[in-house]
Amino acid sequence: MKFCSQCGSVVEHQIPPGDHLPRFICGTCQTIHYENPKVIVGCVPEYQGKILLCKRAIEPRLGFWTIPAGFMENGETLEAGAARECLEEAQAHVSIGSLLAIVDVVHAHQVHVMFRAKLEKPEFGAGAESLEVGLYSPEEIPWSDIAFRSIEFALKRYLSDRQTGIETVHTTQFNGKVWHQPSEEG
Amino acid sequence: MKFCSQCGSVVEHQIPPGDHLPRFICGTCQTIHYENPKVIVGCVPEYQGKILLCKRAIEPRLGFWTIPAGFMENGETLEAGAARECLEEAQAHVSIGSLLAIVDVVHAHQVHVMFRAKLEKPEFGAGAESLEVGLYSPEEIPWSDIAFRSIEFALKRYLSDRQTGIETVHTTQFNGKVWHQPSEEG
Repeated sequence: MKFCSQCGSVVEHQIPPGDHLPRFICGTCQTIHYENPKVIVGCVPEYQGKILLCKRAIEPRLGFWTIPAGFMENGETLEAGAARECLEEAQAHVSIGSLLAIVDVVHAHQVHVMFRAKLEKPEFGAGAESLEVGLYSPEEIPWSDIAFRSIEFALKRYLSDRQTGIETVHTTQFNGKVWHQPSEEG
Repeated sequence: MKFCSQCGSVVEHQIPPGDHLPRFICGTCQTIHYENPKVIVGCVPEYQGKILLCKRAIEPRLGFWTIPAGFMENGETLEAGAARECLEEAQAHVSIGSLLAIVDVVHAHQVHVMFRAKLEKPEFGAGAESLEVGLYSPEEIPWSDIAFRSIEFALKRYLSDRQTGIETVHTTQFNGKVWHQPSEEG
């Protein structure tokens, strides 16, 4: 941020009086521009035991696999956002189910919120941000080519809960960009 | 938003190619400025059966009661943000416990995430954003003067879970600013 979005003047990066973090402050109109984490919403869509996965057509992690997920928009609920992302990225209509995972992705300034979901019909396709979309059984999931740690975490917890039959909300946090080797533990 | 924060030119409000919502777009450098929901983090701090509440010193809802809660910051986890807000607003150190509630506050473009917490010692005070801070037993809580529906929801679910001894994650959504009468149902 270089300019004030309210008046167009140059901003300065300073700690405002009474605050504890530096913010972008307009030297002319004094507006303080706060920057806060964004919410990523997604779901694990299931159809007859298989999971709907998308191969990313965009950076970051182009060519790697993910569940349908993306930035939550103003004016929608978490569930509505997760369903919308699935429609956009996988051209698939889902019924959003219970809350699956909440992941702090600290270095990216993001909170990932993921739900269980049911694919209503085996109808899907590659949206503009996907190269390929398909249904995969647990043993077919390309674990070594998953796009993000939070996605691996959500998928593994989804599958382990399915085995036990107990649906819980899983939480974890990641901080640091390095992710050399997807672990069995997620 | 009137000006581009990258180059200072005037922005236009248009739907970008391939998008479905209007965004602020810079006519000069073409930067698209997305606006997304913000995360509010808070906790219900308990000490010997009583709940720590704060009377708000700032708008909105100045003079009404809340649990310690505020905007999540970049670079922190949900739990760390909830503990920080408690320190800032109630000058109290807490141990953050399990996830209590996730509330979509659609009209405010916010997601509220609230945790259970334990106040380590009965030491607290009014931070800059609080007029008054105190420990209240369930029957002493000023239910008709609670600041926000999400806070009422979290407090009621906290207390009902305490009675059953089963800690679960509660979710709900509010859309619309009207809140005439705090209900017993939250």
